[in-house]
Amino acid sequence: MSRFLSDRLKALEPYTPGEQPQILNLIKLNTNESPFPPSEKAVANATCEAEKLQLYPDPECKKLTEEIAELVGVAADEVLVTNGSDEILNFAFMAYCDTENGAAFPDITYGFYKVFAQLGSIPYIEIPLTDSLEINLEEYKGIGKTIFIANPNAPTGIFIEPEEIEEVIKANPDSVVVVDEAYVDFGGRSCIPLIKKYDNLLVTQTFSKSRSMAGARLGFGVGCKALIQDLNTIKYSTNPYNINRMTMAAGLGVLADEEYTQANCKTVCENREYTQKALKELGFDVTGSKANFIFAKHPSVSGEKIYQGLRDRKILVRHFSAERICEYNRITVGTKNQMDAFLDAIRAILKEELK
Amino acid sequence: MSRFLSDRLKALEPYTPGEQPQILNLIKLNTNESPFPPSEKAVANATCEAEKLQLYPDPECKKLTEEIAELVGVAADEVLVTNGSDEILNFAFMAYCDTENGAAFPDITYGFYKVFAQLGSIPYIEIPLTDSLEINLEEYKGIGKTIFIANPNAPTGIFIEPEEIEEVIKANPDSVVVVDEAYVDFGGRSCIPLIKKYDNLLVTQTFSKSRSMAGARLGFGVGCKALIQDLNTIKYSTNPYNINRMTMAAGLGVLADEEYTQANCKTVCENREYTQKALKELGFDVTGSKANFIFAKHPSVSGEKIYQGLRDRKILVRHFSAERICEYNRITVGTKNQMDAFLDAIRAILKEELK
Repeated sequence: MSRFLSDRLKALEPYTPGEQPQILNLIKLNTNESPFPPSEKAVANATCEAEKLQLYPDPECKKLTEEIAELVGVAADEVLVTNGSDEILNFAFMAYCDTENGAAFPDITYGFYKVFAQLGSIPYIEIPLTDSLEINLEEYKGIGKTIFIANPNAPTGIFIEPEEIEEVIKANPDSVVVVDEAYVDFGGRSCIPLIKKYDNLLVTQTFSKSRSMAGARLGFGVGCKALIQDLNTIKYSTNPYNINRMTMAAGLGVLADEEYTQANCKTVCENREYTQKALKELGFDVTGSKANFIFAKHPSVSGEKIYQGLRDRKILVRHFSAERICEYNRITVGTKNQMDAFLDAIRAILKEELK
Repeated sequence: MSRFLSDRLKALEPYTPGEQPQILNLIKLNTNESPFPPSEKAVANATCEAEKLQLYPDPECKKLTEEIAELVGVAADEVLVTNGSDEILNFAFMAYCDTENGAAFPDITYGFYKVFAQLGSIPYIEIPLTDSLEINLEEYKGIGKTIFIANPNAPTGIFIEPEEIEEVIKANPDSVVVVDEAYVDFGGRSCIPLIKKYDNLLVTQTFSKSRSMAGARLGFGVGCKALIQDLNTIKYSTNPYNINRMTMAAGLGVLADEEYTQANCKTVCENREYTQKALKELGFDVTGSKANFIFAKHPSVSGEKIYQGLRDRKILVRHFSAERICEYNRITVGTKNQMDAFLDAIRAILKEELK
């Protein structure tokens, strides 16, 4: 830290991304990436666009915004495209929270919400999940704060029906409710249709998971026109050319290949159910995830031991040290082969630890 | 604007990017893009990387950071790579300014500084350029504010020698001085060597202009290790994966093709001198730019008329409405053919207006 850093940032603890180690033949199940390559149409489009890099991208992202709007069934002025969904989440904290207007989110959820709040000197409350790691929506009703709910939640993968979230939106008419649907494409249902009914709902999604584009950085938000105008004001006040040409083109490519996306999501769901079932048979508690990851703990072997045992076998999953979840590991759902290798490793670890 | 937008942002006036009209056969000299395609190595690298989009990019940008550090002659921990140089300028405003610690910059300069300040509710002063549109460095000495100087300045193109800027850095030991060198590669000299001597200097540059990569979004900052740590804290608190895989790869490609960059810069400088000379012969006042653009006004024909006359002839330049510079136009330096077409159009306009 330099002696010049603003006082308000001196205690800021940045987000820690999942590790990206350079281990040969590693099975990487730690950052919820897709196990499938990007759509060929995405690759072809990006390749073509790379030849025009001397020109600025379209700051309005017009075509891509229109295509996303069509995909999710809203108007183009109800969509804002961003550099990953982290960017639109940050914009939402900037737009709808300040030192007077705080934020509320679960104590166990996407770790970035807390960082965004701290960055903006925004007071926030973390509402504890229930003992079964579920979001207790009752506690959010009439709370009078900007609400951030990941649905499915991370790292639990637990999904809440939009009809239940609607009750929270309805019960907070003077606060914005942000529903972060990064993982909604793996068996969940989106809250997007509700934006027609509520002016206080912002839904965010990403191309990183279901569309195999984590490396391209593409996310978006959907809300009523006025919310999107607010967020556009922030975009044009931070980084108007936030989406580069290649990513924009790749996004259009994958949207033209929706069957590929759907087929991949279906496979991930099948592999998830297969793996969750096998883990249960091995004695694990699993949360019943509807995301592209599994959250699981064993009653007799610690989360740390399992994490380390897997790592020793060149399988990387994500382990969190927070007290309430330190017995769990979060395992990204990969291909069937990767899941079998993972389960073999788990069996070997249990055999060793329980002998 | 929604009824939810934070009070502190209600008066915010976002930055207006140069227009990107879809006019057939337009000669586009309005956003200071390179007239040359990206390096073939950049294109090849990006193309190759597009096939791995399912994986997150390296949040540390390790390899690219190292290569940039080598290019500019500093250590890797003295460099931060960002999503265009707008991102690092925004980070600098966030890190080194707050409601207590204001900013200072010229009244006529890159229009985004004012927007960043307003976004952060940062008090700022705009120090008038001299009558000859030069930055009067004396006024910045001992000012006790975070200083932003574009060098060469925009839209004047006027360059200040690093030795003169050093006096400002030296005279403000307790404030950060940010030197924005977006246009330094066209005949200027960088302040980067001074970071070894001063812990309060941050220099920013971009791949958008001299490296033909405006469409890829790549910029960087150079400063002492502690400053880079500060800015990294902000990066990891806003968007850790700020550089996508394709842009990172393209950046490595163009750095491996430095001769191409140097040759393009040389051509731009030659075309600039050629065009500035021709404009002077036609009676224009030119500021003597060292950037990839020319700033010129005619004593008898208004800036607005010239802008419109060029536009009618399918040549787009940038015109600003601010009082002190509304008689000028900013003309991006293109290829020799583009400059000849521009000069022909100017001759036709003068003939028409002065008959």
